[in-house]
Amino acid sequence: MDTRTGLPVVGMVGGGQLARMTHQAAISLGQSLRVLAATPEDGAALVATDVRIGDHTDLAALQAFAKDCDVVTFDHEHVPTEHVRALAAAGTAVYPGADALCYAQDKRAMRERLGALGAPVPRWAPVPAPAEVAAFAAEAGWPVVLKGIRGGYDGRGVWLVSTVDEARSVVDSGIPLLVEERVPLRRELAVQVARSPFGQVAVYPVVQTVQQAGICVEVLAPAPGLPADLAVEAQELAVRIASALDVVGLLAVELFETDAGLVVNELAMRPHNAGHWTIEGARTSQFEQHLRAVLDYPLGATEPTAPAVAMANVLGGPAGGMSLDERLHHLFAADPGARVHLYGKQVRPGRKIGHVTVPGADLADVRRRARRAARWLREGT
Amino acid sequence: MDTRTGLPVVGMVGGGQLARMTHQAAISLGQSLRVLAATPEDGAALVATDVRIGDHTDLAALQAFAKDCDVVTFDHEHVPTEHVRALAAAGTAVYPGADALCYAQDKRAMRERLGALGAPVPRWAPVPAPAEVAAFAAEAGWPVVLKGIRGGYDGRGVWLVSTVDEARSVVDSGIPLLVEERVPLRRELAVQVARSPFGQVAVYPVVQTVQQAGICVEVLAPAPGLPADLAVEAQELAVRIASALDVVGLLAVELFETDAGLVVNELAMRPHNAGHWTIEGARTSQFEQHLRAVLDYPLGATEPTAPAVAMANVLGGPAGGMSLDERLHHLFAADPGARVHLYGKQVRPGRKIGHVTVPGADLADVRRRARRAARWLREGT
Repeated sequence: MDTRTGLPVVGMVGGGQLARMTHQAAISLGQSLRVLAATPEDGAALVATDVRIGDHTDLAALQAFAKDCDVVTFDHEHVPTEHVRALAAAGTAVYPGADALCYAQDKRAMRERLGALGAPVPRWAPVPAPAEVAAFAAEAGWPVVLKGIRGGYDGRGVWLVSTVDEARSVVDSGIPLLVEERVPLRRELAVQVARSPFGQVAVYPVVQTVQQAGICVEVLAPAPGLPADLAVEAQELAVRIASALDVVGLLAVELFETDAGLVVNELAMRPHNAGHWTIEGARTSQFEQHLRAVLDYPLGATEPTAPAVAMANVLGGPAGGMSLDERLHHLFAADPGARVHLYGKQVRPGRKIGHVTVPGADLADVRRRARRAARWLREGT
Repeated sequence: MDTRTGLPVVGMVGGGQLARMTHQAAISLGQSLRVLAATPEDGAALVATDVRIGDHTDLAALQAFAKDCDVVTFDHEHVPTEHVRALAAAGTAVYPGADALCYAQDKRAMRERLGALGAPVPRWAPVPAPAEVAAFAAEAGWPVVLKGIRGGYDGRGVWLVSTVDEARSVVDSGIPLLVEERVPLRRELAVQVARSPFGQVAVYPVVQTVQQAGICVEVLAPAPGLPADLAVEAQELAVRIASALDVVGLLAVELFETDAGLVVNELAMRPHNAGHWTIEGARTSQFEQHLRAVLDYPLGATEPTAPAVAMANVLGGPAGGMSLDERLHHLFAADPGARVHLYGKQVRPGRKIGHVTVPGADLADVRRRARRAARWLREGT
């Protein structure tokens, strides 16, 4: 409890853009987010008052951070499960808890658990050795997908392989892996649900996510042309997973839409890139919703605020050319309705440095404008 | 310029809720607001990284603060004009500048300037002595309004007097005064316009403001039932005043609607309580717009995002009863669509501690909900 305001203190482990935007939401709730950042240059550390610098794998740093927090939550999934358990055992409210978080940290555990729940998942198998990849591919067909069991994101930790030799070079790296069929997908979807300790759930509209080289570049909300029964199925699936896994906070379920129906790809238990559109596009942003969920506040309305919303990520472009400040001038002159979110990061090629959201009446229009805005901020043209 | 991000640094003098909400907007633009706060407990000082503590009447403190700011602007109008001039003379970009700000600081200068512009103002006169009040009232009729020329807000510095004796007791206090007719008003309106150094202007929809005991308690956007020609007249008037006075940043024009048309009541050159609804209710919030204006960025779209928006201020209630945190729980349970903004202030009776905005389709509905939400946060019932 913050004795000056009588309002709770939420601590977030990790100081990236998710923490940065959660701090913005915390301010409206009368709070100031406490952030455990890796460096003083982290996006959230540049804008929040109450920043501690420490390593998220250092139990002592986590314990010192958690002291006097009413709730501890996460901007990423990289805190070791045993540290999460240690914090909880010492009396800290940690959400999501270790028994939920482990499924977002370990893809093998996640696949097994989802399978046991009867949720639709790709065909998969553990990979002790290259021979298992060949045996799996003999049934599922080449190419197959190898995934690191822990730690991958934004396309890292995923390999598409077409032969045993290609598989061997990945297996020989020593990374614990699983193998999955290459799902013949129409497109990728995502659905977010918030869940509180009390068990209340609030689900957002299903969105379409567009990836390039494994990185999300665009989100369309709601997913255009999605049949109502599939949308309801996706939302019910997300609620079922959140409840079964006892997730507290936000759960993002990344889905493949295939000719045979929906297939679960990944889970994330925190605010997620697929939900950045909610800042302007939904009545309650995913960041406020995450805070409300982990604080056991009643959840906010998730209705969209516009018929169509497009979000485009801004990736760092090549060095040189116009400064980011100049690019911002030009973008604002070109599109007074584009909503810009910059993360305070040094620009590096391919790095997510911000996003742009355009809400409006017509999907084709908002999509074109969001893409153009992101390209402008990236390339200055 | 912030060398870590390559983006500009805006310094705001004053650490109240306007600076607090401007910091939220600055974060989206990749910035972190630099704040000169009076105390570490100021609302903005609780949430911003880059906070200096100092007195806004202390020139040395202002000069130290302005160092390395790309632009200096204000959360209130109480910085002495001569200090604003000194900063500008030393090369700091200060917006609004002293030649504009003086009209928001000095009601006599404002009345004279607006009269010279041909803007509709109440009948008024300077008050060197009680005899002038009597002479003015002989023409305008009792009661009349005495106003302190400098420093009043939220009903402070305003006296309604019905006799010469009542006028004398105010005049004898030694406060420099002017006297105005008591305008027979239908209601109060406000219109906000942003203006950049380049001269670009962007005007928001005209709103109705509802006062109680001189304090704004409610804002309805757009002003219900306002004839289109009056709305355009109000917007044109605001643009004309902003341009004539060379205002940079946001200008709020508070208006009386009378049977004979519009009359200008007050000017404010900063984000304003009458514009809090824009956070959710307009495409670009007044806080981002103020930053864009003082940075000479192209201005953002001002279209409303919903057909009707109601904003209700949360005033501090009597001591005792439920904590603010408990009240928040109950409010969120009762209305998942209410948007809450708390300012991190200690609760004191009558003090503005936050506001609630409800956007929606129907004015009667959103007004009822915003009022109920504000009452709940104030009284816990």
